[in-house]
Amino acid sequence: MKELLKITSLTNSHIKELALLANSKERNAKKKVLLEGEHLVKEAYGLGVLEEVLIVDENDYLDGVNNILVTKDIIKKLSTTATPQSIIGIAKIVDKEIEFGNTILLLDGISDPGNLGTIVRTAKAFDVSSIILSSRSIDIYNEKVIRATQGAIFKMPIIKMNMLDAISLLKDKGYLVLATALKDASYLDSIDKVDKYALVLGNEATGVSKEVIEASDKVVKIKMSENVESLNVAIACGICLYDLNNKRK
Amino acid sequence: MKELLKITSLTNSHIKELALLANSKERNAKKKVLLEGEHLVKEAYGLGVLEEVLIVDENDYLDGVNNILVTKDIIKKLSTTATPQSIIGIAKIVDKEIEFGNTILLLDGISDPGNLGTIVRTAKAFDVSSIILSSRSIDIYNEKVIRATQGAIFKMPIIKMNMLDAISLLKDKGYLVLATALKDASYLDSIDKVDKYALVLGNEATGVSKEVIEASDKVVKIKMSENVESLNVAIACGICLYDLNNKRK
Repeated sequence: MKELLKITSLTNSHIKELALLANSKERNAKKKVLLEGEHLVKEAYGLGVLEEVLIVDENDYLDGVNNILVTKDIIKKLSTTATPQSIIGIAKIVDKEIEFGNTILLLDGISDPGNLGTIVRTAKAFDVSSIILSSRSIDIYNEKVIRATQGAIFKMPIIKMNMLDAISLLKDKGYLVLATALKDASYLDSIDKVDKYALVLGNEATGVSKEVIEASDKVVKIKMSENVESLNVAIACGICLYDLNNKRK
Repeated sequence: MKELLKITSLTNSHIKELALLANSKERNAKKKVLLEGEHLVKEAYGLGVLEEVLIVDENDYLDGVNNILVTKDIIKKLSTTATPQSIIGIAKIVDKEIEFGNTILLLDGISDPGNLGTIVRTAKAFDVSSIILSSRSIDIYNEKVIRATQGAIFKMPIIKMNMLDAISLLKDKGYLVLATALKDASYLDSIDKVDKYALVLGNEATGVSKEVIEASDKVVKIKMSENVESLNVAIACGICLYDLNNKRK
């Protein structure tokens, strides 16, 4: 058995520093994020972005990263869930560049962490090559976002960028830019065939902003019952990506 | 201005009784549910299921139901959110019968309240006529479920029933019963045309149970990237309903 560094004090300076990562500014300044639970830690480990792991049980030792043996109380202090697991990882935030694949997703101000996380997971399932976020979006390294992505967050380039600049760039590169809206929009059915496309989804309450709608090539909506106001944005994302990807065959 | 009943004490017997409705057994025994916030209260009011409203501001008075003026502390006591709104409604739970429309949704053990609520909202958008829940599902009157439905919960017959009994009944009535699974399933594409169908979705971790799969007419899956394990169940629900409804044209 290896000699392991042990920390038992809640007021240890390293633990106090890690606790600061609960704050999004701190995360983005330090380029580090806490991961709760075995599933996420293993995902980050497999992808080579795990730097350190805090473990309660020596058997959870991971080769090649910094291992620290800690108490359950320390895990609890750093955790945001009511029933914390016995492992916390520290992963590095790697700045990525846009990957120009067949599908790009633009998110113009998603505010709910569960929605953003589910959208990232869904985007990965439908071969989105990059996600571009407007500045009014919630932080992607929020712990609820990470949990809802189920690990997909480390496999997808996610870039913060001005929406209009992004649309201009994507149009130059030959993408068809499709914004979603409930009014003044064509049904997805009206699109016969797509090649490279960028899909724009908007804020839960206010939708895609007016200037982004105007900069887009086309505005689309999903056919549904007239008695219902709207779909959840992550559901709309899944349906649009599924439908549009089918139109590329 | 009407003479309004006022309650200011947190230990008032009526308030204590209402607080018990946080418990699912109590809700189902009393056939009453608490609704937090103006949006949900107005929905229930419009549909005639609101019985009583607790208001902080006399201007929120609603004709035709029992109005009680209360303190912010009472609202806070009854609320489950961190920043409660200033209105709480008490709606009656109305037992409904299955409506045999073109689409029925069967949920074999959804455990996350946000997922269940989003599924109900999505089902309403795609003209599902009834939802049938297995006994291992979370309570539909859980406050997080209600919030995620955005009011759709009062517009949809939701019935608890044994899954195998439900499938047998639906087959008798001419429904094509489609279960979803990740393995040993055909792509949705393999279905050309559907008339009346029942879609079965399963638990987030364990999926549709084996005996339910075996009782179904066909097992389907959604085409997606091979690197991704699965979609969120509410996303899968939205895509399946959208795709199958399109096949009815």
